[in-house]
Amino acid sequence: MRMILVNGESREHVEIADRGFQYGDGLFETIAVDNGQAVFLGRHLDRLKAGCRRLYIPFPDIELLVYETSTLCQHSSKAVLKLILTRGSGGRGYRQPDVIQPTRVLSLHPFPSFPISILGKFASAYEEQGIAARFCSTRLGLNPALAGIKHLNRLEQVLARAEWSDPVIQEGIMLDMNDHVIEGTMSNLFYVKNDMLFTASLALAGVAGVMRSIIMALSARHNLPVVEHAFSKDELLSADEIFVCNSIIGIWPINKIANTRFPVGSKTRQIQVWLDQFKHEVICGDI
Amino acid sequence: MRMILVNGESREHVEIADRGFQYGDGLFETIAVDNGQAVFLGRHLDRLKAGCRRLYIPFPDIELLVYETSTLCQHSSKAVLKLILTRGSGGRGYRQPDVIQPTRVLSLHPFPSFPISILGKFASAYEEQGIAARFCSTRLGLNPALAGIKHLNRLEQVLARAEWSDPVIQEGIMLDMNDHVIEGTMSNLFYVKNDMLFTASLALAGVAGVMRSIIMALSARHNLPVVEHAFSKDELLSADEIFVCNSIIGIWPINKIANTRFPVGSKTRQIQVWLDQFKHEVICGDI
Repeated sequence: MRMILVNGESREHVEIADRGFQYGDGLFETIAVDNGQAVFLGRHLDRLKAGCRRLYIPFPDIELLVYETSTLCQHSSKAVLKLILTRGSGGRGYRQPDVIQPTRVLSLHPFPSFPISILGKFASAYEEQGIAARFCSTRLGLNPALAGIKHLNRLEQVLARAEWSDPVIQEGIMLDMNDHVIEGTMSNLFYVKNDMLFTASLALAGVAGVMRSIIMALSARHNLPVVEHAFSKDELLSADEIFVCNSIIGIWPINKIANTRFPVGSKTRQIQVWLDQFKHEVICGDI
Repeated sequence: MRMILVNGESREHVEIADRGFQYGDGLFETIAVDNGQAVFLGRHLDRLKAGCRRLYIPFPDIELLVYETSTLCQHSSKAVLKLILTRGSGGRGYRQPDVIQPTRVLSLHPFPSFPISILGKFASAYEEQGIAARFCSTRLGLNPALAGIKHLNRLEQVLARAEWSDPVIQEGIMLDMNDHVIEGTMSNLFYVKNDMLFTASLALAGVAGVMRSIIMALSARHNLPVVEHAFSKDELLSADEIFVCNSIIGIWPINKIANTRFPVGSKTRQIQVWLDQFKHEVICGDI
């Protein structure tokens, strides 16, 4: 099933000289594919464009990206599309070439197989019943120049994900060097306390996920205040509800962190409903 | 002249699925080649091994690495060898595969052409007369889990090197998020003050260069105290002498940072002599 397009051509390889390989000098997007459509493609391309601006990588022709996405996804009922954009090939050394010709890599992967929802109205048991999480000891470094960007320098996440292999634990929660909770290894994190929604400020570390921005927009639309701030492990553990999110999993409630249990609460359920409705609107072309 | 070996085979490409490309999940070494020999190869392989231990990447058979290095370098009088070692190919997602088969990439590049030394006894005019440097505004993030390692997550260096294009400036000096001076974009930095040698502590940020470790070993051998500590821009600017170093350039004195001038001092000259003698010893097989 795996298919890859490199600069529009079917290939499985990239040049050794590509700065994505040499330095992690690039960006990526991970996009759900549903019935041949790349879900929230416009938002993913907007974020890619914002990342390009911050890393001074020329953003490719958007029609081309949309065309290639459609070519790759059109016959796929359910899959994951990964889009990588690098600064292209260049000589040895950090200095970027005078003319940058970005490399774009679109690859299609099987959708992960999550346990099936018992009630049937959720996409997976994790969405329905929640997941167990742990705190990782690997910290996120602090760097405002890179914070928020979904770039290819992901060793911190690799090291954090290597901390556990227990299949019962679905996500690891990462703190930054200031002991602030930032996100999951592959997700953003929200918590509910006193009927308000909180998430980490990403000014110094973390990835500003597309699903995170959708949840914040939906909350604003429904008059649920969202506070972006810096918070500690203890503040998180005193939350009423916690959930993680990304473009592939949607919203997964957290029902347990280490030995602390959390209910799958009404606010989390409400936001899951808003997200479902929103997906339906977008797929039906209303927005 | 460019030649590349990927896992021992002559190739110019690497798999898209390689974790080096996907996440910068790997390490590298940049090694001078002189008269068919990879200079200080043992020390480079030692550092690579130390990096492998910290990132949990299996270190390849050392005889194989030495053999491939020799194959690539033997007919080259002067060149740069780049050795990249990644965690190999793996599925989508940060979790590493159960069986890790690292990818090793050895590539040979032209030696950079530096201006010629006037007196003729130095390898370049930069070694002889020194270089102009600047302070970069891009900061190094803080992360003890990654500090010191020559890994493939190098976006900070790419952004820092993109800050200037003035050909008169040969190196950019990087500070960390705590306003401590750490290193150059492609080099380690030392300064001399009151006949003592100082360099940055790399506990939170920076790359522990092979040339840096050689200079520290040579200084110890010749009873010149070296202090690894945290220091500010102002402390650096009040130095008696400053130099940067790496495996390709050797030791370049800094004669100017922004508007502050520095002499090419006697301690720097002394260390250049020690390094020359040491290179000769190593190449002649005495050590």
